[in-house]
Amino acid sequence: MYFPSWLSQLYRGLSRPIRRTTQPIWGSLSRSLVLSSQRRNPEFSSFVVRTNTCGELRSSHLGQEVTLCGWIQYRRQNTFLVLRDFHGLVQVIIPQDESAASVRKILCEAPMESVVQVSGTVISRPAGQENPKMPTGEIEIKVKTAELLNACKKLPFEIKDFMKKTEALRLQYRYLDLRSFQMQYNLRLRSQMVMKMREYLCNLHGFVDIETPTLFKRTPGGAKEFLVPSREPGKFYSLPQSPQQFKQLLMVGGLDRYFQVARCYRDEGSRPDRQPEFTQIDIEMSFVDQTGIQSLIEGLLQYSWPNDKNPVVVPFPSMTFAEALATYGTDKPDTRFGMKKYFKRKDIESIRKFSADHFDQEILPVFLNTNRNWNSPVANFIMELKRQELIRLMETQEEDVVLLTAGEHNKACSLLGKLRLECADLLETRGVVLRDPTLFSFLWVVDFPLFLPKEENPRELESAHHPFTAPHPSDIHLLYTEPKKVRSQHYDLVLNGNEIGGGSIRIHNAELQQYILATLLKEDVKLLSHMLQALDYGAPPHGGIALGLDRLICVVTGSPSIRDVIAFPKSFRGHDLMSNTPDSIPPEELKPYHIQVSWPTDSKAAKAH
Amino acid sequence: MYFPSWLSQLYRGLSRPIRRTTQPIWGSLSRSLVLSSQRRNPEFSSFVVRTNTCGELRSSHLGQEVTLCGWIQYRRQNTFLVLRDFHGLVQVIIPQDESAASVRKILCEAPMESVVQVSGTVISRPAGQENPKMPTGEIEIKVKTAELLNACKKLPFEIKDFMKKTEALRLQYRYLDLRSFQMQYNLRLRSQMVMKMREYLCNLHGFVDIETPTLFKRTPGGAKEFLVPSREPGKFYSLPQSPQQFKQLLMVGGLDRYFQVARCYRDEGSRPDRQPEFTQIDIEMSFVDQTGIQSLIEGLLQYSWPNDKNPVVVPFPSMTFAEALATYGTDKPDTRFGMKKYFKRKDIESIRKFSADHFDQEILPVFLNTNRNWNSPVANFIMELKRQELIRLMETQEEDVVLLTAGEHNKACSLLGKLRLECADLLETRGVVLRDPTLFSFLWVVDFPLFLPKEENPRELESAHHPFTAPHPSDIHLLYTEPKKVRSQHYDLVLNGNEIGGGSIRIHNAELQQYILATLLKEDVKLLSHMLQALDYGAPPHGGIALGLDRLICVVTGSPSIRDVIAFPKSFRGHDLMSNTPDSIPPEELKPYHIQVSWPTDSKAAKAH
Repeated sequence: MYFPSWLSQLYRGLSRPIRRTTQPIWGSLSRSLVLSSQRRNPEFSSFVVRTNTCGELRSSHLGQEVTLCGWIQYRRQNTFLVLRDFHGLVQVIIPQDESAASVRKILCEAPMESVVQVSGTVISRPAGQENPKMPTGEIEIKVKTAELLNACKKLPFEIKDFMKKTEALRLQYRYLDLRSFQMQYNLRLRSQMVMKMREYLCNLHGFVDIETPTLFKRTPGGAKEFLVPSREPGKFYSLPQSPQQFKQLLMVGGLDRYFQVARCYRDEGSRPDRQPEFTQIDIEMSFVDQTGIQSLIEGLLQYSWPNDKNPVVVPFPSMTFAEALATYGTDKPDTRFGMKKYFKRKDIESIRKFSADHFDQEILPVFLNTNRNWNSPVANFIMELKRQELIRLMETQEEDVVLLTAGEHNKACSLLGKLRLECADLLETRGVVLRDPTLFSFLWVVDFPLFLPKEENPRELESAHHPFTAPHPSDIHLLYTEPKKVRSQHYDLVLNGNEIGGGSIRIHNAELQQYILATLLKEDVKLLSHMLQALDYGAPPHGGIALGLDRLICVVTGSPSIRDVIAFPKSFRGHDLMSNTPDSIPPEELKPYHIQVSWPTDSKAAKAH
Repeated sequence: MYFPSWLSQLYRGLSRPIRRTTQPIWGSLSRSLVLSSQRRNPEFSSFVVRTNTCGELRSSHLGQEVTLCGWIQYRRQNTFLVLRDFHGLVQVIIPQDESAASVRKILCEAPMESVVQVSGTVISRPAGQENPKMPTGEIEIKVKTAELLNACKKLPFEIKDFMKKTEALRLQYRYLDLRSFQMQYNLRLRSQMVMKMREYLCNLHGFVDIETPTLFKRTPGGAKEFLVPSREPGKFYSLPQSPQQFKQLLMVGGLDRYFQVARCYRDEGSRPDRQPEFTQIDIEMSFVDQTGIQSLIEGLLQYSWPNDKNPVVVPFPSMTFAEALATYGTDKPDTRFGMKKYFKRKDIESIRKFSADHFDQEILPVFLNTNRNWNSPVANFIMELKRQELIRLMETQEEDVVLLTAGEHNKACSLLGKLRLECADLLETRGVVLRDPTLFSFLWVVDFPLFLPKEENPRELESAHHPFTAPHPSDIHLLYTEPKKVRSQHYDLVLNGNEIGGGSIRIHNAELQQYILATLLKEDVKLLSHMLQALDYGAPPHGGIALGLDRLICVVTGSPSIRDVIAFPKSFRGHDLMSNTPDSIPPEELKPYHIQVSWPTDSKAAKAH
């Protein structure tokens, strides 16, 4: 059902002052306070036939003649019905007198979810019949005229939030699913939050919203890029994974501050919970360093954060990649919880099994008895002195459980990090709230390695993020001696264990860029010759970031899947289930693009039948 | 050079009150006035190392210690240089004393267009050396420290607006071209205008900004849609020409008011002055009629119109399609000028030749003598009475020239319409200003036909716009008898002879939609079965519009081409000249998509060599 006053909450906008502990941005602060006092709800009934929305009517409207349009949500005993629009629900009294027979016929015969327009008077509900749970519960509409705008056929499912539907059915009839409270809320919150981000960037800080092409050239190693055949034989466009090259070229072009709510594409085949197209808040600035970008983003999130959520506290804590891996076993730690208590002995068996099954790795539990003795199969293999040392290091207390593992550092840390989340799942099924969904724990992770060994050939290097990332100033000398040890000026933004953004200071020196591309990464430099040339023609120092909008809104709304914050998402397999997309194309429509289908041998046979 | 104070003009925002003569939208009016008094320029120097922009410094900054970053625009006699950023120019004094030798070396040796950072004091220029043409012309910077951030190699052309360059060269080095005043102005104006449109739609009128997919299904007859191969053999996505289906489905989903600054795709092969991807302001509303959409758009353009341009007067005049064709010979008349005078006799010959060459059509000039006699080869073939009638109808005066032609109505009108523009070109080369580029003449063109005869088979019908357009309410009965005579509820918005928008009230009745698709248009209904089904499940009456953003900004800025209002446009042939796009793809990257190139026989031969 419609949550009381969620819409005005959403649109109330900027009434919460910005809390900021370091580097005050006074201009933004004063501006937002000034704006907030002026801001009201938008006019939802301008330009249309209705005078009001269903959800906005209150006792203050008593006696007013109103015209409403909406969907029939509910009808009882041919005496009243509940009309719904995006704003909420209102009760409509079906007239019983003879003179209103035609109005009665319309309102009594229209199937549920039919669209009607009614005009009438706002009246008080009879004493005792008010509904305090309903925002419009003090009033009802005494109808004079009614019109059936469109009748509804029998629905494949009921439009009620508590009705459980399979996701496939929801996606097949997405236009019906969108009528649910949750989808309306999610899409409107997303729109509002993006609008506030735009105000912050464009109106308060002078960013220029610039659209960059999506029909572009493939990038080196861009195996995850969709192809778009052109009308020139053998020539293809690619749909880029991000506007990375363009945003940097805009800085070379002197645009100074760029942002775009950018559509990006990534063809990851069957990888689950990814969308082939997704959206990022894409930002680039000239003459900026890492702390400048971080302050900008902290201010941006604070400014655009919804009123009805727990506030964002800035500055966000920061942690190096090495520290995150060593402490949390991941580069995107969920910092809402520690992980110290509540285990039962039989849980340990399931944890040992999990690590053996998933990682082929042995886990050794250590139970500390009240006398601080170790109750563990490993106890005898570790000297008393080492045991004391471990107890001190871990700051363990009585009845703690310590999980020990041994092995290559990164692998062991990564296993323990996953076990930590597994343990959290386990404890939450027991009712221990470790990860409060209403809390928002932001974290910067910094000082990533610039390069990683290639998976298929560990003696060669690949970029940990992308080849335009600048090395850490303290490590530049290592580029020529021990490139594997070079840290980068890359930073990730983590929220509740989700990577919601990442960016870097970029290389602005052509020679350094050439050295990294050609000598260290052994990339085909021809594909990027325009970038190298651009750096030579007066490129300013610059850096930027991209926030994954779908994931961010997903966490903010507490949705189980990013598909719940996208109007028309693709399924796991990249299909639009509503329209049956992707689809076959008649061969003659392929001809202008000089391509033909290479049917796999077995499908060809199947097709012939 | 940098135009005085253009940036603050752009960002001053909403200081002009909305003028409106009909249907006042008081809420918007009062809101915008309230906002306008608060609005200031954004902070362009937040989060970065500079304290100020080059272009903002004035006498009010005298004595301040500032840090600036910018490009070396000009240097004279090693005594001063002019530093440039997006905001403007400022004069920097190169220190001459011995102690500042290192600073002097940096500033004297850096090539033009190198990027430098300087710190120093804002001082007055010596008396008599002020430059009143330069916004910063009263001050200069006494430098204390300087740093070379990036040296610039020899440029392929100078970054000066008065330098004429070929467009191919500009596109090849787009990142340098973007440094020009005109490109900076165009892109910033575009960003600002779109931002104000968003404020109007989202904050003032409750529209929801919703992103719709671009990887979709092909539409019936969608021969101009780019294809995107999927990893399933023979299955393709299409890049849609507009979010038409999605915006309508959002209305069925109860979103009520949708907008999106939408990326659209159209593969028109080699048609000139079109971009394969373009942007439209895409709008859809429920429970609205044609006048509602028109008022919305008039308010939108007025609200978002740049301050430094002649204002938009609303409401816009309206004209039927039939009237536009009969009077102006086109459905997008340039209403800035009539067309009545100034011709010389020899011009007539070139006009006759133009119409013979381009249209294989004879034109008969009629010169009215002072005695109102016709001086024309056709005079003898038209009776005196008819001649008098024509003179009266045309409201001709002495020395007027009348161009007559005969033939099928639409063809003759169209020829005369093109001749009118040809005549305007001709007169403007003589210095007669007919089409003042600072004037903005908006016009609604309405009552288009719903169907047109198919070009390849005139006995069959095709949609004049698209198959979802609703018929004119007065003509619905004709659908079943004389469908060719049915007018639609489509409307075009014309600005200075350019179609900058178009929309319609849509069909919301499934039965009517099915009849038009299947019976009248003989389309493959299967491709649209999800749309037909959606209309059956309680679709509200709805309508919308799309504004062509590139074209609109092009007219507003008075640019010669839409390529001048797009950061990274494609060339005539759909190429990105900077990066050489589209490009060849290694065959192994085509494999996952189950496609192969069908080489034309001659290219195959060419490739083999």
